[in-house]
Amino acid sequence: MVKINENFLKLQAGYLFPEISRRIREHRRRRTGTRTGTKLISLGIGDVTQPLAPAVIEAMKNAVVDMGTEAGFHGYGPEQGYDFLIDAIINNDYEPRGVHSHKPNVVYGSSGIDLDRSEIFITDGTKCDIGNIQEIFGLDNVVAISDPVYPVYVDSNVMAGRTGQPDQNGLYEKIVYMPCTAENNFIPDLPKTPVDIIYLCFPNNPTGAVATKEILSRWVDFARTNKAIILFDAAYEAFITDTDIPHSIYEIDGAKEVAIEFRSFSKTAGFTGVRCAFTVVPKQLKAYAKDGRAVEVNPVWNRRHNTKFNGASYISQVGAAAVYTPQGKKQCRKIIDIYMANAALIRQSLTKLGYQVYGGINAPYIWMKTPDGLSSWDFFDRLLTKANVVGTPGAGFGPAGEGYLRLTAFGKPAEVKEAMERFTAV
Amino acid sequence: MVKINENFLKLQAGYLFPEISRRIREHRRRRTGTRTGTKLISLGIGDVTQPLAPAVIEAMKNAVVDMGTEAGFHGYGPEQGYDFLIDAIINNDYEPRGVHSHKPNVVYGSSGIDLDRSEIFITDGTKCDIGNIQEIFGLDNVVAISDPVYPVYVDSNVMAGRTGQPDQNGLYEKIVYMPCTAENNFIPDLPKTPVDIIYLCFPNNPTGAVATKEILSRWVDFARTNKAIILFDAAYEAFITDTDIPHSIYEIDGAKEVAIEFRSFSKTAGFTGVRCAFTVVPKQLKAYAKDGRAVEVNPVWNRRHNTKFNGASYISQVGAAAVYTPQGKKQCRKIIDIYMANAALIRQSLTKLGYQVYGGINAPYIWMKTPDGLSSWDFFDRLLTKANVVGTPGAGFGPAGEGYLRLTAFGKPAEVKEAMERFTAV
Repeated sequence: MVKINENFLKLQAGYLFPEISRRIREHRRRRTGTRTGTKLISLGIGDVTQPLAPAVIEAMKNAVVDMGTEAGFHGYGPEQGYDFLIDAIINNDYEPRGVHSHKPNVVYGSSGIDLDRSEIFITDGTKCDIGNIQEIFGLDNVVAISDPVYPVYVDSNVMAGRTGQPDQNGLYEKIVYMPCTAENNFIPDLPKTPVDIIYLCFPNNPTGAVATKEILSRWVDFARTNKAIILFDAAYEAFITDTDIPHSIYEIDGAKEVAIEFRSFSKTAGFTGVRCAFTVVPKQLKAYAKDGRAVEVNPVWNRRHNTKFNGASYISQVGAAAVYTPQGKKQCRKIIDIYMANAALIRQSLTKLGYQVYGGINAPYIWMKTPDGLSSWDFFDRLLTKANVVGTPGAGFGPAGEGYLRLTAFGKPAEVKEAMERFTAV
Repeated sequence: MVKINENFLKLQAGYLFPEISRRIREHRRRRTGTRTGTKLISLGIGDVTQPLAPAVIEAMKNAVVDMGTEAGFHGYGPEQGYDFLIDAIINNDYEPRGVHSHKPNVVYGSSGIDLDRSEIFITDGTKCDIGNIQEIFGLDNVVAISDPVYPVYVDSNVMAGRTGQPDQNGLYEKIVYMPCTAENNFIPDLPKTPVDIIYLCFPNNPTGAVATKEILSRWVDFARTNKAIILFDAAYEAFITDTDIPHSIYEIDGAKEVAIEFRSFSKTAGFTGVRCAFTVVPKQLKAYAKDGRAVEVNPVWNRRHNTKFNGASYISQVGAAAVYTPQGKKQCRKIIDIYMANAALIRQSLTKLGYQVYGGINAPYIWMKTPDGLSSWDFFDRLLTKANVVGTPGAGFGPAGEGYLRLTAFGKPAEVKEAMERFTAV
């Protein structure tokens, strides 16, 4: 008799975004024939709205045409991705920030960190990577997770069996939650109890908080002291505007011994429908067998990757490489500037209306306090029904997100402007 | 202290194809400057060589152009895939074979099986799907796997912890192996001991064997009687030439209660570099909690899918939908005919040379007995060094594959012809 993985039965309600979609459908059904003139504006799910950069389109068009020719056809590529993309990543995302590509016989300064091709794994998305990465670690690891948090970190650990049941607040037994509140500027405090795997996300989804070099150094030191691993989600690094904020955790000395980094083209270059991302698993990184023996993590992840993944689309990889061309960089920058102008408008408008808002300066997310002591979902419903504006209820990201709403800067500028006008009416 | 998942340490050597690549590199290094005139011909890894069908190219080119416009831009799609592709699949892959799309108020005959959109999950590849599917089932399930077999079935279960250590033949403790030999026509016998999850692949990789309706019915009956689940890998169904061989396990009455089916565009339409596949998880399918309660599998897989996957590339999905247009069908059929002509040539040539060969009639794989009692890897090495031809050692698919070599029909016709000439010399 086939047994279900009962860990899945511990999961609560629907995944956040399907639940939002459900409420929107319900709202649409109810208002049919009444106020059909008012268009729904979504500042909810973090999906981009600007078309892809022309340089990316041109490159992908050529890649498609190539695939129809004998000489240009590409079948299975390397599971880890093509070198043309890996090299572009190292040269553009890491070299300029002091994380160098590996060159034999070159001695780097104390802050210079070398990066080898085999440490980068190209994939079809960070959601997959960050959901799958926990597989290579034992089930007896204690996981530390920020609250509020991107639900995938929690749910993937629940599914694997690293947690007990949830309590009445939705907090799972065995997970060490690190509350991020206005009091600690949405930067989690170091755990007081032993933890083995730490999920960090900066710039943060959902709060929009960023971590300085000092803050990241504290975490790297903590991980080194405790032989813990940091899973560093840097999907939003392109939105950093302050020059002294690190874009990569590897800008911190010693981070390669304790951290895996996740990056995505989804928000950087509008690839949410194209699918391309990458994960950095350094060779220095170690985990431990029960007998205390150190095991290199990179080959274990590589084995998992080879076994359960067959490479990202060639067309998507060609498109991603075009993001790093001079034209591609300029065009993608322009798109990010559009979104950051949205963020500034949202911040200013809501502040003027007397709302308390966070984030939106080095991140595409604005984290707003709900008014009148309303719960997240009640404020979500009020905004939806009164203003036809969709946000994401903070409580959907964890109990410490209760009383907040996440707005994203990814809307079309005209719609963001209109949404802000509608806010005045609520 | 972070603990590694020690199940990964049970895995043996490298994954088959990386090991083949390593030997090829080694061979190339050795012969540099000696016999550089002879080009290496690969009939090894099952990768296609023909360019994509013009209808697919045209559709993807338009999709790329759309992505550069405000009106045509597509961000996140449904995690489960676009309805335009799901409907094309139901209407073309299933309707003509008696598996109908779900129409309320229609009563189907005894062999009519309805298929609902929500039962189909579009993904980026069958390797991912068939590697990931085991996650939703408990670790205490007994898994039955053919020997020889596509290594992903075994390795993904080893990683999860459903096995013990491997023995000296590479067989893992706790897995129920089902030998497929010339004696049973490479069709596994029903297990004599209780099993919960059964992996079946027809047309078979690596042996090229196919299952008749009678054989599949026997398996469906077995699964129903034992409340087991069949994971049916149908990635090669497009290569079936005999009209009475089922393309889908759902052509068998009752299969929707016990089987998950995996399909891919990789071989059907040359999508190995494009990435698109789908998995059918019927709503009638049940697994069981420890207390005996039946749990619907479809919503559990849907939850996993929503949490760890963000949809296949829009461009790939548009390309896959074009496979089902009248032009696309005709063009893809022509490509498959090229490969099947290769298969026929390989069969005829090797038979004429006195080799014992199997498969290659309803499948793109030819399973040949090694001559002179050579081991698989020894014959692989002999072919590589003497003829510059690459096959896949049967032993790489499991101990019952020892003494066989897998050849694929996916080469370029001129190269396949030349490879057959070189065989004469070995």
